[in-house]
Amino acid sequence: MSSAILLISCPDRPGLVANVTQFIFAHQGNIIHLDQHVDAQENVFFMRVEWDMERFTIPQEEVAGRFEPIARLFDMQWRLTFSSTRQRMAIFVTRESHALYDLLARWQSDELAVDIPLIVSNHHDLAGVAAQFGIRFEHVPVDKHDRRSAEDRQLALLAQHQVDFVVLAKYMQIVTEHFIRHYPNRIINIHHSFLPAFVGAKPYHQAFARGVKIIGATSHYVTSDLDAGPIIEQDVVRVTHKDSVQDLVRRGKDLEKTVLARAVYYHVQHRTLVYNNKTIVFA
Amino acid sequence: MSSAILLISCPDRPGLVANVTQFIFAHQGNIIHLDQHVDAQENVFFMRVEWDMERFTIPQEEVAGRFEPIARLFDMQWRLTFSSTRQRMAIFVTRESHALYDLLARWQSDELAVDIPLIVSNHHDLAGVAAQFGIRFEHVPVDKHDRRSAEDRQLALLAQHQVDFVVLAKYMQIVTEHFIRHYPNRIINIHHSFLPAFVGAKPYHQAFARGVKIIGATSHYVTSDLDAGPIIEQDVVRVTHKDSVQDLVRRGKDLEKTVLARAVYYHVQHRTLVYNNKTIVFA
Amino acid sequence: MSSAILLISCPDRPGLVANVTQFIFAHQGNIIHLDQHVDAQENVFFMRVEWDMERFTIPQEEVAGRFEPIARLFDMQWRLTFSSTRQRMAIFVTRESHALYDLLARWQSDELAVDIPLIVSNHHDLAGVAAQFGIRFEHVPVDKHDRRSAEDRQLALLAQHQVDFVVLAKYMQIVTEHFIRHYPNRIINIHHSFLPAFVGAKPYHQAFARGVKIIGATSHYVTSDLDAGPIIEQDVVRVTHKDSVQDLVRRGKDLEKTVLARAVYYHVQHRTLVYNNKTIVFA
Amino acid sequence: MSSAILLISCPDRPGLVANVTQFIFAHQGNIIHLDQHVDAQENVFFMRVEWDMERFTIPQEEVAGRFEPIARLFDMQWRLTFSSTRQRMAIFVTRESHALYDLLARWQSDELAVDIPLIVSNHHDLAGVAAQFGIRFEHVPVDKHDRRSAEDRQLALLAQHQVDFVVLAKYMQIVTEHFIRHYPNRIINIHHSFLPAFVGAKPYHQAFARGVKIIGATSHYVTSDLDAGPIIEQDVVRVTHKDSVQDLVRRGKDLEKTVLARAVYYHVQHRTLVYNNKTIVFA
Repeated sequence: MSSAILLISCPDRPGLVANVTQFIFAHQGNIIHLDQHVDAQENVFFMRVEWDMERFTIPQEEVAGRFEPIARLFDMQWRLTFSSTRQRMAIFVTRESHALYDLLARWQSDELAVDIPLIVSNHHDLAGVAAQFGIRFEHVPVDKHDRRSAEDRQLALLAQHQVDFVVLAKYMQIVTEHFIRHYPNRIINIHHSFLPAFVGAKPYHQAFARGVKIIGATSHYVTSDLDAGPIIEQDVVRVTHKDSVQDLVRRGKDLEKTVLARAVYYHVQHRTLVYNNKTIVFA
Repeated sequence: MSSAILLISCPDRPGLVANVTQFIFAHQGNIIHLDQHVDAQENVFFMRVEWDMERFTIPQEEVAGRFEPIARLFDMQWRLTFSSTRQRMAIFVTRESHALYDLLARWQSDELAVDIPLIVSNHHDLAGVAAQFGIRFEHVPVDKHDRRSAEDRQLALLAQHQVDFVVLAKYMQIVTEHFIRHYPNRIINIHHSFLPAFVGAKPYHQAFARGVKIIGATSHYVTSDLDAGPIIEQDVVRVTHKDSVQDLVRRGKDLEKTVLARAVYYHVQHRTLVYNNKTIVFA
Repeated sequence: MSSAILLISCPDRPGLVANVTQFIFAHQGNIIHLDQHVDAQENVFFMRVEWDMERFTIPQEEVAGRFEPIARLFDMQWRLTFSSTRQRMAIFVTRESHALYDLLARWQSDELAVDIPLIVSNHHDLAGVAAQFGIRFEHVPVDKHDRRSAEDRQLALLAQHQVDFVVLAKYMQIVTEHFIRHYPNRIINIHHSFLPAFVGAKPYHQAFARGVKIIGATSHYVTSDLDAGPIIEQDVVRVTHKDSVQDLVRRGKDLEKTVLARAVYYHVQHRTLVYNNKTIVFA
Repeated sequence: MSSAILLISCPDRPGLVANVTQFIFAHQGNIIHLDQHVDAQENVFFMRVEWDMERFTIPQEEVAGRFEPIARLFDMQWRLTFSSTRQRMAIFVTRESHALYDLLARWQSDELAVDIPLIVSNHHDLAGVAAQFGIRFEHVPVDKHDRRSAEDRQLALLAQHQVDFVVLAKYMQIVTEHFIRHYPNRIINIHHSFLPAFVGAKPYHQAFARGVKIIGATSHYVTSDLDAGPIIEQDVVRVTHKDSVQDLVRRGKDLEKTVLARAVYYHVQHRTLVYNNKTIVFA
């Protein structure tokens, strides 16, 4: 069964829900999920609505055109997708395997319903993991003084493989504005701290030094402002004075992979909307 | 500012959201919150919608009558309330003070926007707490072999004080069908375990004996089936082998009062809908 | 039953546990709890040991003197207390009542086994709460440009009432080095964020603006470095895009009072040891 | 660096810690970790102590013999192991891959420092996963009416591969007393509920039907009493009325693999002691 998913943001005003749901109802669509939110402070309206396409009287390829007038009337920013369209995801890694294994195991058991044409890394270490799962592995070394040429090579690969979005699964490299511009709100990173605490390098060492009683991990869309992009998901785990930095690293890995996987899941399901450097997650 | 809150459940079918929101829009209502849910297995539709009454063109006392035809059309069970109506809450206690103090402190700081005309207890211990807050305290002793007469006395008090709903804040007594019938889905209990684990008496002793690594508390609507009513809220805390039964009791108290307070908050805000012995919480 | 509690920190070396436990055993003490920790990075040893005084052959007032030679041998920093000694706690507040109510309710039910001779505030708002519980309330206004005179007045009150430690229960004022010096590691604060995230003013507003998915509260010993003292306890709660700043404040209050109460509990039980701006909590 | 790990349980009495630590100290051992616990209700003493073998004056193979007299004196049940001894772990699975992948990824990155000679299954589905990691896969079909012959085949395989302990990574079969007897407190299971809630089959369906607001997973040692063995680790995740049974299954999988991995980690590190059907975890 295929469904249509419509994501909307626009200035709040009366009649928004009525108009959108009337459009769906008038063409025999049955709503499966509807979630809306009003940011009262900013007076912005957000909605995600999903409906059954089975008896919908407008063919899939014409829905956008027919919805357009309503969108224009309410000044909407909107995105229409269909559950039948499988997205293409690339994974960038460095040397740590845990988040990569976790994503690939979810993909192989079809919990993560995407295609993965490509794994990219600045090191060779994880080529074997890619091979285990029969996925193409591309080694693209990164020169810290010339990120541009590596990024151009990466962008070419992504274009060639028609990649829709990129997951940085502990890819410990800075990604520049040049790269990000091609995938706005479509690059998902996992940072190994409870942001905004412990931005930057070695967050577990920072957490250990500060003596926190809880550590966290944060998945966010990548923006040019390091570790400051819109947060999609976070989670935490309790630690004690007995935990060494190595213990924090070990415990943190479980957080990292779980939090990243949830963020990817929300993205794949079109459950996220970015506004004002924040992510609305219709969970 | 007053708002209207409409809670609906009915068989799912196309046009439900469109019709309800069109009703609101047509009379100049602006939706503040809308949350809906479809139980796909049971094919039942649930909705909570809240709209601003400021410019609504139907006067408060006529809204129900005007909505009636839509409700009939879709076979709805529904409830309409207004945020301006202050509810009256009674608290039943026995000897433990923590949950009572917590509710009263929230009430006094106006976090809990209700009237509390009455505290009822089968013991005298907490009369002083009621006095601290200037609330009437009624001692109604309970004879385990004749609960009926105590319950009749309680019901008379509740009627006299026009109580809308009852909170059992560690009221360690069985409440019979006779009593419950008068307040269906309007008696909120706190049970000191993570239900359905450890039903009945002495759940902390049971938890200690079983060696669980996490304990919990559960707030639910009271039904005639002991500790088996629809769950409103639960929470848990981690424990270890070092925790004695007394430690579990101490840690559990913090859960109990917090979980109960959240459940009461949801109830007061008309965020709960009971169906099939489960509670939908539009949190 | 009274017990002795010994807290030790010193350079790590073989024989530490053997010597201390031999001392206890040789005088017929039975160990109730023993918890030790070695900071391998700093090579520092920490221990908390509690033993039954019932058959201990050294009288309470002579224990310290008899232990002294062992302490000297190992270069220990140490503290000896007895469970029979009731501590005296002062509470500083401003206008918010939730943490104050929570502490007082715990005190009244004897969960918190301390004496509370004094509540101090820079406002009059909570005088009524103090009166409810029959505790002396002292209003000490604070002039932001002359904190010294207020602090001198506060110190005089604390001295007069023989206060052992101070709890800042949402006392929204800066405490200066002048004051702190008199109560090193004996002033407990609650900060309404998951430190080190959102230091300083209006942390819930900061959290809302950053779009975090989890908020927290942190209890710490007060040092002259604002919100940077050694952390005793933290906890968190999940939030969503639906939560307004007011919702964060409401949810956060439950965290604040619970986290503060746990920190106070650990302190009262002599379960905390500060080292290197971190708190070892023998929970 | 190798260390010795001593696990003790015995009737509590004065001098236990002093004697054991004196034994270590007298032979130049430096304690790395010491954790002890007294079950005051049962009057039983438990201890885990780990010390550096580097300068220990007793050779590894003679430590047990030299400690024996102390053990006898205090009527100890005890176990001595050395961190240099690598354990051999077998994994039993059925059809679900998530917990298996998770264990194997931890093993491959050396987070889990064991040898895995063998994966056993009653189905063929996961043979490919075993092959990905180069581990021997044995298919042992189970006839529900004659479990004995399958178990005998399994026991022969375990003996042949000198397996120390067995992990049931979603092995959805009953294991009989006949099998368990060979590996007492050395078979670790993961049950997909927060035990003791939802014992037996289809716990997620049970949880959905009961309308709980939190689901959990429990790892425990297997005893002949189904799902009632001593609990090693548990964890939970919040769910809502929006979550279908399928959502619970998906969310639960993350719990299952993490909880199981933690339990296995504690076991491998000799941090667990079973007493009275409860597990003391020196975490």
